[in-house]
Amino acid sequence: MYELGVVYRNITRADRAAADRLATTGSATVHEAMGRVGLLKPYMRPIQRGVKVSGTAVTVLLHPGDNWMMHVAAEQIRPGDIVVAAITAECTDGYFGDLLATSFQARGARALIIDAGVRDVSTLNEMNFPVWSKCVSSKGTIKATLGSVNIPVVCAGQLVTPGDVIVADDDGIVCVPAARAAQVADAAEHRESFEGEKRAKLASGILGLDMYKMREPLEKAGLRYID
Amino acid sequence: MYELGVVYRNITRADRAAADRLATTGSATVHEAMGRVGLLKPYMRPIQRGVKVSGTAVTVLLHPGDNWMMHVAAEQIRPGDIVVAAITAECTDGYFGDLLATSFQARGARALIIDAGVRDVSTLNEMNFPVWSKCVSSKGTIKATLGSVNIPVVCAGQLVTPGDVIVADDDGIVCVPAARAAQVADAAEHRESFEGEKRAKLASGILGLDMYKMREPLEKAGLRYID
Amino acid sequence: MYELGVVYRNITRADRAAADRLATTGSATVHEAMGRVGLLKPYMRPIQRGVKVSGTAVTVLLHPGDNWMMHVAAEQIRPGDIVVAAITAECTDGYFGDLLATSFQARGARALIIDAGVRDVSTLNEMNFPVWSKCVSSKGTIKATLGSVNIPVVCAGQLVTPGDVIVADDDGIVCVPAARAAQVADAAEHRESFEGEKRAKLASGILGLDMYKMREPLEKAGLRYID
Amino acid sequence: MYELGVVYRNITRADRAAADRLATTGSATVHEAMGRVGLLKPYMRPIQRGVKVSGTAVTVLLHPGDNWMMHVAAEQIRPGDIVVAAITAECTDGYFGDLLATSFQARGARALIIDAGVRDVSTLNEMNFPVWSKCVSSKGTIKATLGSVNIPVVCAGQLVTPGDVIVADDDGIVCVPAARAAQVADAAEHRESFEGEKRAKLASGILGLDMYKMREPLEKAGLRYID
Amino acid sequence: MYELGVVYRNITRADRAAADRLATTGSATVHEAMGRVGLLKPYMRPIQRGVKVSGTAVTVLLHPGDNWMMHVAAEQIRPGDIVVAAITAECTDGYFGDLLATSFQARGARALIIDAGVRDVSTLNEMNFPVWSKCVSSKGTIKATLGSVNIPVVCAGQLVTPGDVIVADDDGIVCVPAARAAQVADAAEHRESFEGEKRAKLASGILGLDMYKMREPLEKAGLRYID
Amino acid sequence: MYELGVVYRNITRADRAAADRLATTGSATVHEAMGRVGLLKPYMRPIQRGVKVSGTAVTVLLHPGDNWMMHVAAEQIRPGDIVVAAITAECTDGYFGDLLATSFQARGARALIIDAGVRDVSTLNEMNFPVWSKCVSSKGTIKATLGSVNIPVVCAGQLVTPGDVIVADDDGIVCVPAARAAQVADAAEHRESFEGEKRAKLASGILGLDMYKMREPLEKAGLRYID
Repeated sequence: MYELGVVYRNITRADRAAADRLATTGSATVHEAMGRVGLLKPYMRPIQRGVKVSGTAVTVLLHPGDNWMMHVAAEQIRPGDIVVAAITAECTDGYFGDLLATSFQARGARALIIDAGVRDVSTLNEMNFPVWSKCVSSKGTIKATLGSVNIPVVCAGQLVTPGDVIVADDDGIVCVPAARAAQVADAAEHRESFEGEKRAKLASGILGLDMYKMREPLEKAGLRYID
Repeated sequence: MYELGVVYRNITRADRAAADRLATTGSATVHEAMGRVGLLKPYMRPIQRGVKVSGTAVTVLLHPGDNWMMHVAAEQIRPGDIVVAAITAECTDGYFGDLLATSFQARGARALIIDAGVRDVSTLNEMNFPVWSKCVSSKGTIKATLGSVNIPVVCAGQLVTPGDVIVADDDGIVCVPAARAAQVADAAEHRESFEGEKRAKLASGILGLDMYKMREPLEKAGLRYID
Repeated sequence: MYELGVVYRNITRADRAAADRLATTGSATVHEAMGRVGLLKPYMRPIQRGVKVSGTAVTVLLHPGDNWMMHVAAEQIRPGDIVVAAITAECTDGYFGDLLATSFQARGARALIIDAGVRDVSTLNEMNFPVWSKCVSSKGTIKATLGSVNIPVVCAGQLVTPGDVIVADDDGIVCVPAARAAQVADAAEHRESFEGEKRAKLASGILGLDMYKMREPLEKAGLRYID
Repeated sequence: MYELGVVYRNITRADRAAADRLATTGSATVHEAMGRVGLLKPYMRPIQRGVKVSGTAVTVLLHPGDNWMMHVAAEQIRPGDIVVAAITAECTDGYFGDLLATSFQARGARALIIDAGVRDVSTLNEMNFPVWSKCVSSKGTIKATLGSVNIPVVCAGQLVTPGDVIVADDDGIVCVPAARAAQVADAAEHRESFEGEKRAKLASGILGLDMYKMREPLEKAGLRYID
Repeated sequence: MYELGVVYRNITRADRAAADRLATTGSATVHEAMGRVGLLKPYMRPIQRGVKVSGTAVTVLLHPGDNWMMHVAAEQIRPGDIVVAAITAECTDGYFGDLLATSFQARGARALIIDAGVRDVSTLNEMNFPVWSKCVSSKGTIKATLGSVNIPVVCAGQLVTPGDVIVADDDGIVCVPAARAAQVADAAEHRESFEGEKRAKLASGILGLDMYKMREPLEKAGLRYID
Repeated sequence: MYELGVVYRNITRADRAAADRLATTGSATVHEAMGRVGLLKPYMRPIQRGVKVSGTAVTVLLHPGDNWMMHVAAEQIRPGDIVVAAITAECTDGYFGDLLATSFQARGARALIIDAGVRDVSTLNEMNFPVWSKCVSSKGTIKATLGSVNIPVVCAGQLVTPGDVIVADDDGIVCVPAARAAQVADAAEHRESFEGEKRAKLASGILGLDMYKMREPLEKAGLRYID
């Protein structure tokens, strides 16, 4: 499917306000609000703890062991973007370290999502540049082969189109299509508005069985209690 | 990205002749002819040996442990199609067995590609219904949740759009965009037309080093021979 | 949970006739007839093709890299048994080869199920001694540590109690509790008795959508067809 | 083996004092004291750091992608319990988040052990509700299928019977049968009572070779020193 | 450890007669005769069935996704050699297909052992060129970077020095140091000379417990029989 | 390849000053300075955060589930050493805990690198004894079988010769041959001396495309920009 050797300079980014709002509810709530689709595979893990971020996707397709296109991607970053990097085959190399992070941060990138490895993770943490990756590896990469920037890519099993909203936190990463960003943000906030009340009830000892009125459907489904 | 609960009845299938020609050269040559993109991840393995097949993709998106949409997909199959099944999360269940294979075969399907498990593999082999899957499992599935048919899906890390050409054999599976089918078939056949001559030379003892004129570039790259 | 260093000589085997009948329907149908429980994890794979077997479990618990208890288990085998071997930690060593297979076969064992590796697989195939294992490995084991024979074990994620019925074929392995063997065999045969008719209908082009009357529930669930 | 659709309300919990004492020595010492059995597979990892906990098991069996029975389990929790959740097939979904944790905590649960994924991990850490899981995932679950509560389950390769003692810390998770809890606690404390003295000797530079009198058996085993 | 960009033309191959004899006993017996060392990891699997082969190692070190050095290695092959290919990082690409196999076969190579993928596996089987690999993949490789030929390499976790003997069959792959080839062949044949007699005894129903005189040591170790 | 049952007492350690300098640049820079070889596989992970260490390798070869040789290795440790432990087959057991760490620390060891599991990780962190391992496991080991100390071993896919320099940090682990230690330290420091300047430029918004003069080679390679 992939077109190689191209850089799309003009992409349609999701509405900025919607993109920003999506971070507040977090990846789990957004995933529910999407109808339980859009998740990147859970082997993708943050190198830091406690960061919640959202932003618009700039995508980059790379070859195994080659990070040349990362520099091409850097130029396409605008403030508020998150770079989403996919590789044409499985690779654990460390494509990204503190120098590239400095450049990405200077361009306004909020985070990197990469289906491969990164390095200099201590420095990345000190720089407060958040990364979600498949692994960590000291192994560097060469700069020899053309990939592409801002084409649709499959990253960790999920299609990401340039301009889509990426929502990432300790629970994982969700991709929200640009056109649905505002609607999903509304739905996510709506879901969350009920959470405080529910939490208070559950904390007081009320059971989900009663709060969600599950006893009857469970009985209908045939659940038997044995003393 | 996924739209749930929809079935697209009218899809644009790749040119039939081009789709059929692509089987003859096989997945490895087609992958080269594509510019080394389009491959499904190599964990996908055939349950049979020695089958080479190509056809147009009918796609189906399923939920973990639920094969309801397989029956919906069956109706959309036309002779020459290959069903490509993706799951919204990792699953090893056996989504497909001899009854569904009978139905798919009656509709004219040539094969199934599924990023999950299948069962009744002995019978499937006797029926000559080829399958490439992630695993084999006796575990059946329920029929409770809506997915979709003929939307673009990510199967084994590869985006497959309905109507694309699937080429599968013992080496793996490649997806060729419908619009490029004829051009890729030409390129693949062109590549293969030189193979017989090369094979004869290599069989006679001529080295690739000489046949491909590699000695000079290797020397330039700094290769040293030590006696 | 495990008691170490003990051999239970008297175990209650499932009814022989029921145990034998269970092979005929195969692991997938038996799994359905059980209510979709009882499956060993699908990473367990046969070293041969096309074998369908059932029998009563003689269990053995071994330590990593140590097959001493296999010889203790051999003495407890009666004709019609299948040996189920569990290891106290992950191990890929080859615990079992042609000599042990000769001994097991002489005692009347029908197969081995082992959550580790085996070796001499070519000879095992020639001997027609079927094995389902996690892997194949040339690496042998020592004989130094006590495990147990005929205690309940967890093999590939499934609890197996001595005397339970094991059903294994190309699709996988299912464990049927001894007390339920006859009832499950009935249910499995009942399920299968409808398969021929269904297969004929599907082969004639009738869709599962119609045969199983799925159109109405799919519509109720909200499925939309788009032309 | 599994009975589906049942909830056992009366289970025999291990002696409370013994269950509580087991946390102090930790999973590694308890595992040794058990005779090196009882361990859940080491892919189970804590979402927090530095927590040591023990408690009596309330078990729950769930289906892939379905957490309905978690709410049923909540009602069966008594102060001092640890919920142990098993799934009928491999699944990475996030079955458990901050709302369920609030409910479990209100009922007196000390921790969750789950052979699948969880979410809201930042909030779970803030709440001091400890969890050991196979993975973390934003993906939620549905509430549609019956499992069971307080039946014996296999969790991460280990049989857990309701009422058994679970001991969990940064090193892993061990299951102690209820009937053996006091004896294992004694044995573990006995083992640990010698550790301080050993540590002091080793810290002073005395070698284990001498402290454990290993030189002679090593020589007998044939160890050769080469200068 | 690796020296890059060098080809050693003169390597000391193991004694030919010893190298050839080692195939007859097979990898499992050779592994035992070596003192249970020398095994390549068991994820390495044959693409064919029933082949037993031994030969002297010509080694090649390659970079991920680059098979240039395979052509350099071809020139160093002498009749009776087995090519052992290691990669500097994990890679699943298909480094080797029918053209290279034709060349290797013309040079007298007996097999390929590669810690990566291969392709054209149907044709390789027809050609009777045996291969043990980590996987199968249609994905080809480029020819851009220097590795080395005939330096010591780590292949599938095992150090292989050029000239060592490789023994491979359905059970796996063992590496025998060149200097030990004759002695290991003797020891392996000695082991095997007793197998026929043992097999006959076991086939007649004599238990290993008695044949190996295990009852006394088992009793000493504390084994208890319970009726 | 492995010689079993031997302990080499006299090994040639890398130059101390060079070994110590290598920690300052870290594993990623050292890996580059080596020519991108020498890396242990990235599944090896630290149990602590933020530690950077280098030292000379004392190697130990162990059998699965048996840590006897760890005590033999302890005696061979000199101040400034790092113990590198390899296992003859895959194993996840916890070979090393706080007692052995106390002994190693008393002997002057700086760290442990082990291709298996460790336990007591909370205590190890409190003791400031750094460990890189494949996993964490409560499961202990026995002391029954001879391995070797100070022979060349393969650890996590990398050959380590006694006396080599090990460089380990959050990014991973690199092995530098003793003879190359000073030269690699020079090269690594040389590389790093330019990093500050580069970082400043990138932080100011200058692109890598311009700083590294990549625009021309990218154009030559055929990169197309599309507006």
